[in-house]
Amino acid sequence: MAKSKFEYVKQFESEDKLLPNCWIVVRIDGKGFHRFSDVHNYIKPNDDRALDLMSKAAETVMEEFKDIVLAYGQSDEYSFVFKKTTNVYNRRASKLATNVVSLFASSFVYFWPRYFGTTMMQYPPAFDSRTVLYPTDKNLRDYLSWRQADCHINNLYNTCFWKLIQEKGLTPAESQERLKGTMSSDKNELLFKEFEINYNNLHALHRKGTILIRATKGIENGDLDLSLQLHLSGSSTSRSQSARGHGRGMDSRRSPQMSRKLTRPNIDRLHVDLIGEQFWTDYPDILNPPKR
Amino acid sequence: MAKSKFEYVKQFESEDKLLPNCWIVVRIDGKGFHRFSDVHNYIKPNDDRALDLMSKAAETVMEEFKDIVLAYGQSDEYSFVFKKTTNVYNRRASKLATNVVSLFASSFVYFWPRYFGTTMMQYPPAFDSRTVLYPTDKNLRDYLSWRQADCHINNLYNTCFWKLIQEKGLTPAESQERLKGTMSSDKNELLFKEFEINYNNLHALHRKGTILIRATKGIENGDLDLSLQLHLSGSSTSRSQSARGHGRGMDSRRSPQMSRKLTRPNIDRLHVDLIGEQFWTDYPDILNPPKR
Amino acid sequence: MAKSKFEYVKQFESEDKLLPNCWIVVRIDGKGFHRFSDVHNYIKPNDDRALDLMSKAAETVMEEFKDIVLAYGQSDEYSFVFKKTTNVYNRRASKLATNVVSLFASSFVYFWPRYFGTTMMQYPPAFDSRTVLYPTDKNLRDYLSWRQADCHINNLYNTCFWKLIQEKGLTPAESQERLKGTMSSDKNELLFKEFEINYNNLHALHRKGTILIRATKGIENGDLDLSLQLHLSGSSTSRSQSARGHGRGMDSRRSPQMSRKLTRPNIDRLHVDLIGEQFWTDYPDILNPPKR
Amino acid sequence: MAKSKFEYVKQFESEDKLLPNCWIVVRIDGKGFHRFSDVHNYIKPNDDRALDLMSKAAETVMEEFKDIVLAYGQSDEYSFVFKKTTNVYNRRASKLATNVVSLFASSFVYFWPRYFGTTMMQYPPAFDSRTVLYPTDKNLRDYLSWRQADCHINNLYNTCFWKLIQEKGLTPAESQERLKGTMSSDKNELLFKEFEINYNNLHALHRKGTILIRATKGIENGDLDLSLQLHLSGSSTSRSQSARGHGRGMDSRRSPQMSRKLTRPNIDRLHVDLIGEQFWTDYPDILNPPKR
Repeated sequence: MAKSKFEYVKQFESEDKLLPNCWIVVRIDGKGFHRFSDVHNYIKPNDDRALDLMSKAAETVMEEFKDIVLAYGQSDEYSFVFKKTTNVYNRRASKLATNVVSLFASSFVYFWPRYFGTTMMQYPPAFDSRTVLYPTDKNLRDYLSWRQADCHINNLYNTCFWKLIQEKGLTPAESQERLKGTMSSDKNELLFKEFEINYNNLHALHRKGTILIRATKGIENGDLDLSLQLHLSGSSTSRSQSARGHGRGMDSRRSPQMSRKLTRPNIDRLHVDLIGEQFWTDYPDILNPPKR
Repeated sequence: MAKSKFEYVKQFESEDKLLPNCWIVVRIDGKGFHRFSDVHNYIKPNDDRALDLMSKAAETVMEEFKDIVLAYGQSDEYSFVFKKTTNVYNRRASKLATNVVSLFASSFVYFWPRYFGTTMMQYPPAFDSRTVLYPTDKNLRDYLSWRQADCHINNLYNTCFWKLIQEKGLTPAESQERLKGTMSSDKNELLFKEFEINYNNLHALHRKGTILIRATKGIENGDLDLSLQLHLSGSSTSRSQSARGHGRGMDSRRSPQMSRKLTRPNIDRLHVDLIGEQFWTDYPDILNPPKR
Repeated sequence: MAKSKFEYVKQFESEDKLLPNCWIVVRIDGKGFHRFSDVHNYIKPNDDRALDLMSKAAETVMEEFKDIVLAYGQSDEYSFVFKKTTNVYNRRASKLATNVVSLFASSFVYFWPRYFGTTMMQYPPAFDSRTVLYPTDKNLRDYLSWRQADCHINNLYNTCFWKLIQEKGLTPAESQERLKGTMSSDKNELLFKEFEINYNNLHALHRKGTILIRATKGIENGDLDLSLQLHLSGSSTSRSQSARGHGRGMDSRRSPQMSRKLTRPNIDRLHVDLIGEQFWTDYPDILNPPKR
Repeated sequence: MAKSKFEYVKQFESEDKLLPNCWIVVRIDGKGFHRFSDVHNYIKPNDDRALDLMSKAAETVMEEFKDIVLAYGQSDEYSFVFKKTTNVYNRRASKLATNVVSLFASSFVYFWPRYFGTTMMQYPPAFDSRTVLYPTDKNLRDYLSWRQADCHINNLYNTCFWKLIQEKGLTPAESQERLKGTMSSDKNELLFKEFEINYNNLHALHRKGTILIRATKGIENGDLDLSLQLHLSGSSTSRSQSARGHGRGMDSRRSPQMSRKLTRPNIDRLHVDLIGEQFWTDYPDILNPPKR
């Protein structure tokens, strides 16, 4: 078989190695999820089953790619941050984007029944994926802040939009019209005055999205279970006195904004603010991963 | 919320528009499928359930992307050929590669039970994906020939390798040693002499892989069912006298190498040679899609 | 000296290999030549010294890069067409673009005195350069047609614009106003009625720009000088009966539209139409270079 | 004229915008300068006329591109560092590489007579050019250190190589053989023992190459001329007491390693070490350009 006769076609493949020493973000986005969420009767404005499934798929990706130091998800999107020095797939952009997104997509279908029970998936969904480089820590933080700000803006709007429909009986068109031109403060006031809702008391999962990080060593050892137990039973004292000594940050982590998955002991789900300094002070290893 | 403050990070995304007027091939490859096939007890050397599942996932991709004019699959890989003039996703490479591969991966999991029945999937698989441009019809045909030649070479080797193990009781190492340095002719002879197998009589699915093309109009109308029935019952006469008049090509299509899926009336699965001229004579529309 | 300590920085260089089997066009453009032509008192609307200098620089590039099969120039731009199979610089885009443009720029300065005599160059000019791929002959021809159409459009406009200024005493602003909204036919009529100029009789150099091609072997031998001499002295008969036998094309080449440089016997300058079929019929080797 | 019919070919041009917030280095290299230096009888191992001409051409580039914060040259190469935030040509790689290299090349020819007098240039030279991105200050410094280390290594070798030829009468082949496998220390010893040369006392221009930076404001005012005069006449006291107060750095700048061009008051030529910390302490504005 004249194999060599055809093999020249390999030369048409192009190289797409990413610039070294930059943060690599791989962001996946659901394709046509407006329709997908309608067909599968997602609860509005937020469906916790869907959000948990997204995070489960993201955790599967993080378990496969050890060089991901953080992932951030909201709605039908997830961003994966590879450490600056990663050499996975020799930093080839298409390899990174496609392996991540295909594992995410297959995991989304694979774990669907765990979250949606007897609600059958009607058709397999697609996601797109892209790689973006960020040269500095500031650029990376601004990227993540951009996504979390987007989460907040959309959630505030959607919360108002659906309250007006579900509790005031407005049509979608009327609800949209009611909100047109309103500022954040207007929407906060609307929620408070008409629905007695303090937006800041709503579930952090919906307001802040989900941050996935690898648990630090201190958390992985035996003490963890104890402190976690203590914490979960209401006492965070011992925890905040622990050797890690993150002070306030520590407490904020162990608040209800954290939903630790015991079956995935090495990845934490957080629903906290990452725009301010506190998060980065609490988790210095994310931007400066310890060398192995 | 200072949204604009962070939005500058969008500028870090790079454009990856593919050169116009070239064939775009998106090839997906299973990641770590050696292990995946072991864990799921794939039948060796070829597991028809797995091959059918791959083609089912590929058909799902073809149904979504109407500008795919042909797909070719073998083993754990599939290549999708987008017509030269496609403007899907504005020809952005990462959009094409990631949407195709994620839909393929989610479909692979989604349709798994249909082909593997009670054999549960143990973990969600990943695939990688790349886009390659081919400027001329010859380059494209050589690409497809390269993949089909690869299918043949691997299948011939694997058939020998597993026959020696399964029927002669060799260990994998012994079988590998036995085949070291053999030419194609040696392997053909080995099969014939030791196993009374004429390689060319083996299932075309395994020797040629799978070609997916869109059924032509003539095939989609009412006559099709009749002619197909006639053909399947042994009489291809009426068919070869049909208006399409492909003569010999027609016959070769309606041979046992074709397994028409009645539930997907618009995509044909072929297991024929595409290295020679005949295929391209039979299906002139592939390289010269009729304008709509 | 710890050389290796720093050498890692080479990894930050990116590959930019161009797709195989496509025509490569390198187009250079003068930077700020409006000012440059003012400072150096270029004759308006066309300065033959400047055009000849541009072609001289382009010929220098063609002599260096044997894989250039054709160059086309007009105004302050020149396009160089590398054959589809070229492997110069391993098809690296930046190498091609920068070597061509720097040699062009240095030649432009180097040969300046030959064309501008005692008119001193006031400052060294810059040019930009880009590589563009064209997959098919049609795409390449359309590219060249685009540039020649641009030459025609600009020359027609500029001829009118400067005639109105130079012979009717209009100010530039008045001249611009006079031409606003006019069609090609209007401008042709303006030239004919007001200046008794038949546009088609103007110098082909200005209307068609300059095509550089490599002379065929027949032209390079001793007979050439004779036939050329004959031709230049008014008799083109012997030439059109020559062994090359290009028929009508031959005549059009040996018309005043051709200014053969005797000192560069292997490159011809033509000022003919390349939008129609005739040129490509006359010079079939350009699109199908004979294999060496 | 059917202009629009052809204009579609513009779509074949590809975008090549460089990642924001990275240092952009454009490095130009002489093409075939071994031959060029032979033909023009360059003095070996270093020809100050040629080095000065290179720096003159580089200064011309720096005057044109205000966003270049530093240039470094040695032998037949020059690197130009654009500030991280530059938006010149919208950061398009090919525009940057080609405009810089063509202006460099045209300047090289333009200023040739000023440095080579009656030695005529025999043919116009070419240079290649590439853009490289460096995300961090450390990466950029390492890049420049790499080039300066290269300068040192080559100069040490070439000094030995030519001394052996010019003063000991060795042939080039013998000289090469004599130096094969020697370490830096061996070469230093060779120079000292056989030629009574202390390498570190050789001209800094040859050992360190040339750094071009923009003079700071303090230097541009009237005092400069005075202090420069004083300095050049041997007294640097007043200078080192100037308001700039760079302390030791100041003195080192005004050493013989600096050859200030009075005709180019805003660009300084330095021949100092840039691998260590001192240079960057002396010139903090290079890495942190003051905002305008």
